Amino acid sequence: MNTFGNIFRLTSFGESHGRGIGGIIDGCPAGIELDTDLVQLDLSRRKPGQSKITTQRSEPDQVEFLSGIFEGKTQGTPISFIVWNKDQHSQDYNNLKDVYRPSHADYTYIKKYGTRDHRGGGRSSARETIARVVAGSLAKQVLGRHQISIQAFVSRVGEVQLQIPYTELDLSKTDDSIVRCPDRETAEKMIARIEAAANDQDTVGGIISCVVKGVPAGWGEPVFNKLHADLGFAMLGINAVKGFEYGSGFEGTKLSGSEHNDVFISTSEGTRTKTNNSGGIQGGISNGEDIYFNVAFKPIATLLKEQQTVDKENKETTILPKGRHDPCVLPRAVPIVEAMAALVLVDHYLLSKLNSL
Amino acid sequence: MNTFGNIFRLTSFGESHGRGIGGIIDGCPAGIELDTDLVQLDLSRRKPGQSKITTQRSEPDQVEFLSGIFEGKTQGTPISFIVWNKDQHSQDYNNLKDVYRPSHADYTYIKKYGTRDHRGGGRSSARETIARVVAGSLAKQVLGRHQISIQAFVSRVGEVQLQIPYTELDLSKTDDSIVRCPDRETAEKMIARIEAAANDQDTVGGIISCVVKGVPAGWGEPVFNKLHADLGFAMLGINAVKGFEYGSGFEGTKLSGSEHNDVFISTSEGTRTKTNNSGGIQGGISNGEDIYFNVAFKPIATLLKEQQTVDKENKETTILPKGRHDPCVLPRAVPIVEAMAALVLVDHYLLSKLNSL
Amino acid sequence: MNTFGNIFRLTSFGESHGRGIGGIIDGCPAGIELDTDLVQLDLSRRKPGQSKITTQRSEPDQVEFLSGIFEGKTQGTPISFIVWNKDQHSQDYNNLKDVYRPSHADYTYIKKYGTRDHRGGGRSSARETIARVVAGSLAKQVLGRHQISIQAFVSRVGEVQLQIPYTELDLSKTDDSIVRCPDRETAEKMIARIEAAANDQDTVGGIISCVVKGVPAGWGEPVFNKLHADLGFAMLGINAVKGFEYGSGFEGTKLSGSEHNDVFISTSEGTRTKTNNSGGIQGGISNGEDIYFNVAFKPIATLLKEQQTVDKENKETTILPKGRHDPCVLPRAVPIVEAMAALVLVDHYLLSKLNSL
Amino acid sequence: MNTFGNIFRLTSFGESHGRGIGGIIDGCPAGIELDTDLVQLDLSRRKPGQSKITTQRSEPDQVEFLSGIFEGKTQGTPISFIVWNKDQHSQDYNNLKDVYRPSHADYTYIKKYGTRDHRGGGRSSARETIARVVAGSLAKQVLGRHQISIQAFVSRVGEVQLQIPYTELDLSKTDDSIVRCPDRETAEKMIARIEAAANDQDTVGGIISCVVKGVPAGWGEPVFNKLHADLGFAMLGINAVKGFEYGSGFEGTKLSGSEHNDVFISTSEGTRTKTNNSGGIQGGISNGEDIYFNVAFKPIATLLKEQQTVDKENKETTILPKGRHDPCVLPRAVPIVEAMAALVLVDHYLLSKLNSL
Repeated sequence: MNTFGNIFRLTSFGESHGRGIGGIIDGCPAGIELDTDLVQLDLSRRKPGQSKITTQRSEPDQVEFLSGIFEGKTQGTPISFIVWNKDQHSQDYNNLKDVYRPSHADYTYIKKYGTRDHRGGGRSSARETIARVVAGSLAKQVLGRHQISIQAFVSRVGEVQLQIPYTELDLSKTDDSIVRCPDRETAEKMIARIEAAANDQDTVGGIISCVVKGVPAGWGEPVFNKLHADLGFAMLGINAVKGFEYGSGFEGTKLSGSEHNDVFISTSEGTRTKTNNSGGIQGGISNGEDIYFNVAFKPIATLLKEQQTVDKENKETTILPKGRHDPCVLPRAVPIVEAMAALVLVDHYLLSKLNSL
Repeated sequence: MNTFGNIFRLTSFGESHGRGIGGIIDGCPAGIELDTDLVQLDLSRRKPGQSKITTQRSEPDQVEFLSGIFEGKTQGTPISFIVWNKDQHSQDYNNLKDVYRPSHADYTYIKKYGTRDHRGGGRSSARETIARVVAGSLAKQVLGRHQISIQAFVSRVGEVQLQIPYTELDLSKTDDSIVRCPDRETAEKMIARIEAAANDQDTVGGIISCVVKGVPAGWGEPVFNKLHADLGFAMLGINAVKGFEYGSGFEGTKLSGSEHNDVFISTSEGTRTKTNNSGGIQGGISNGEDIYFNVAFKPIATLLKEQQTVDKENKETTILPKGRHDPCVLPRAVPIVEAMAALVLVDHYLLSKLNSL
Repeated sequence: MNTFGNIFRLTSFGESHGRGIGGIIDGCPAGIELDTDLVQLDLSRRKPGQSKITTQRSEPDQVEFLSGIFEGKTQGTPISFIVWNKDQHSQDYNNLKDVYRPSHADYTYIKKYGTRDHRGGGRSSARETIARVVAGSLAKQVLGRHQISIQAFVSRVGEVQLQIPYTELDLSKTDDSIVRCPDRETAEKMIARIEAAANDQDTVGGIISCVVKGVPAGWGEPVFNKLHADLGFAMLGINAVKGFEYGSGFEGTKLSGSEHNDVFISTSEGTRTKTNNSGGIQGGISNGEDIYFNVAFKPIATLLKEQQTVDKENKETTILPKGRHDPCVLPRAVPIVEAMAALVLVDHYLLSKLNSL
Repeated sequence: MNTFGNIFRLTSFGESHGRGIGGIIDGCPAGIELDTDLVQLDLSRRKPGQSKITTQRSEPDQVEFLSGIFEGKTQGTPISFIVWNKDQHSQDYNNLKDVYRPSHADYTYIKKYGTRDHRGGGRSSARETIARVVAGSLAKQVLGRHQISIQAFVSRVGEVQLQIPYTELDLSKTDDSIVRCPDRETAEKMIARIEAAANDQDTVGGIISCVVKGVPAGWGEPVFNKLHADLGFAMLGINAVKGFEYGSGFEGTKLSGSEHNDVFISTSEGTRTKTNNSGGIQGGISNGEDIYFNVAFKPIATLLKEQQTVDKENKETTILPKGRHDPCVLPRAVPIVEAMAALVLVDHYLLSKLNSL
């Protein structure tokens, strides 16, 4: 159950405090020139220690490709890769061996497997998402050949909400701020909010929004694998995610049908819709409009303040984590959201080749 | 791409205006006594014409099992079934042959397949969910042997919001009202809201909430197939769904970590959590607390009033659907939400047998 | 585990003495005109009672399509179908309820599932292959659009061996004899051999050979899913099959490499091989030459003479089956071999669309 | 298409002349103590340069586990591993860049992918089987806990046939000879036969037989995934394999049913069969008797003598491979056959947990 995708498949491996994090991408077509600098760029957007509002764990996070590439091109064969772990400080976790951190996977892990690598979260660590960012970066490169762009950004931190609709934002400015919000003024408020949480030894959650442009009409499946169902599945598989909505989302359910429907209009570029409450997907299949969605991230569970808990003998105790942790997951999660969206879309791109003869 | 599940797999078939809707359930263990009355009961909760606030299409929706059951028991072999279509009125759709209904799958279907059965929505019709209700009912029966209950109910229609937390509701009363809200007073307001929409030839959306009790700790996968990711995927695959959240959901992202964390406590029944913002799932794996989640349904796209659209030649025109349609999908979607949740959970129940030797 | 194929997938259902045999074909591209007469023709080649050397069970074996076809064309949606059982004589099996037939699946079935439908072989009955013949017939129609032909024939019955290499046979004559051997003289000896077995209340086995022409170079996967591995898997999944070999097969292993290698030659139609010991497949991938292989069928286990056995209490007893049975499975298995080969090839045809961009 | 197995899944990666060969094992239960010495032992049985009758390429073939093991035990999480390539001599292949080696995958590879790593066979190299031996060794360790043994041996080289039935052989002596035939006298003849081929710059094929003891009744699936179909698929996926037969195999098809049937007998250990033409599998499901099968290997295609061929411009030329090659694949393929059998069996062991509640 560590494989994602139907045709373009990522199988990931590795633990936070093991040798490294890596994966195998199977089903990538042959003949694609791989730009490893772009992969490294996405990894650097995800990596710890990148700014004052992220954890200070310092990992170079340099990817090493082990197979499937020859003379710079994909060979149609499995592309394997690894990012070695360097700066682990496993001893910081010694005190967690027999105690369950609240709202972490420690307790559920031991219930599932009967065994647990107590040094960090094992597979539950967000460090696993390195594998997704590498594979997603490759997927973005395949999609880029078809003029498809995927741009995520932070749209809410705690109560600090970006008020401007995405259609009026310049999404190329997202990485100009360390919080990855494209509106400078909101970004500053978000940074202040995160710093306040950090000063408090506390954490804060929020929302990442994502916009996909350029997907042609006709991708997605009508029943279980609706395009938005696959996107939602991908997003809900990211650490700390609590919700997913696309197009008009939860708010749109308050509208009446006559307000919500996207009427079709005739344009010189073909059939379009006047509004886009559908978020670019109708009946599970893309309609050629922008695809956009929101992903809710809870506040990170690791606090640097003492909390009540129990140990593995079910005896009450307290816990005070050491280690270096993020006060807010959102800035580093932006490339992860993009990567998972790319994996879904490249899969449906390949599936779309099979619809008709 | 018409199969759902990993071990307990439903493959569904059929179109709204074809011979019928059916499926094959593969991977159901042998030796389970099947109560077909319970299956029929779930179908009757989903079926059209059940009350004044649903479509008047009148289908008996009687399920016929074709294989896999012998002397009332599952045989470990594929269980196939069909519900024949009876009251189709396909001629009501003749005027839709060359025109795209706004916010339906008509346009995207033709873009995907290059061909389309214009009589109703084909596979995109919610009539396809019959297959899910049958399979889900069987899954519920398997789960019932382990004292697991799944109870969904309507918690919002338009702006009419059920204000009482689920822990204070008597969920056994859900079916007492035709709108399937367990609080009588709210139910009446919801019914009035739906009738107002119907009188207006309009439609209205809302939210279904679902509570699962009795799942032991240890079900779910730590990476892609987190238990809530599989639940979200299942829900987002239901017609008209626009969003999914579990536990504290979107609202919870406004809390700080110290407010949001569910601290562990020691009880005589073992380790529990004091609060349940986690919605019974931590790190993608169940922790033994109640699992609860919300599903957002958009207002149905079919209005009985004229709307602007284009035809297949990209010429602007208008459309006025005939036929019999629901003003609100929610009351009939309650058993569908339960069915999809059951399919996810029975799959993870079977997967949990493989975790350790 | 009742699904075959990766892209073009057949899920089969049904038991010998249940309501019928059917299946769902998922992943068939849209827009293919389905010739149901051809499907029916293949079914009639498989059906019981077709000649004096087959069982006299008399089944019309009329296929009924339930979904996925509209105005004669595939819709890209699941194609479901059923062949109803009619002439079952289940009472003939009453005496088998508690006794295990030698070399049948009765004993292993009860060990696996803990339960068993004793009326015939349940899913282990060769009647299940109806689903394969229907799906395979559709697959053959897709392949036929690419000038690919699949022709199987009986090449050995007991010791009666067809001595002429396939390249010198007129394979269009296969169905001219009831035993389905294209050489008239050998066919007559085979028929006599089968009649001798029948007179003896005994059965006889043999070999079916199959030739596939027109597959372009480049189909198949280099590692696990070698084209011949998928073909072998398909054949070994047919009832009564004990072995599979392709190209030079078992005999070829006696040659030295210099005798066995197929040297490349330049021809006006491109690169070809001088010999074809490779059976059209090199490194698991088709090379454009004819694909050919042999499938070994054991003598049918059901004899109309008394045999020693045990009952479910492990007490020794004897058994004398009633019912109507084939003295030789081979003539009716020819369309099954073709169908399974077609399912493998159509799958690799679709996979080949994903090799490169 | 580089994944093998349903529950216990190996995904392999790597090329003969890349960085190394490795894989990810997903679905291995938690809590199994891994004996890495046993893994290394199996690798040493497969590795080049082990005796005078194998290639002199000298690889240490030391396996490095990268994840999924903690304190010597499996964690239920993906187990990844790599064997680095060391002694590649890629320059030996420069002259093969534009020329197709007869009966190799060079030509078909380029037809499939449009690109090719000409240094060795890429994924088509038998060096890929390292991944299978590592995973298979782990699978054997899981099966060993259930007293299941898998023993393969060379039973024919060219025309030199081992005449003694396996039941009369001491299979623990297989590795006493460098050719891996348990009968000393036959082994010597086989070695002489291989040396003769080598002296001739030629190669020779043959048969590997395999015996599995201890599988309980009830493993396998009745329809497509018959236990022998999965075994055959696994074997046919090994490089150079041309055929597979189990139990009585091809020869058994000459018997009449009354000779071939395995009648049941009552014994103190329960129900057994008197004979074992079924090879331990009836209706695709194990019956508790020994499972045995034969695998046919063609003579290796790489000869150290000049052969006719064409280049990529379809111009005729000749080829004389350099490099270090095996005159006979069989001795080194014995652990590969065992590994693939182990992967199939451990998968069916896990599947058998799902048959009934």
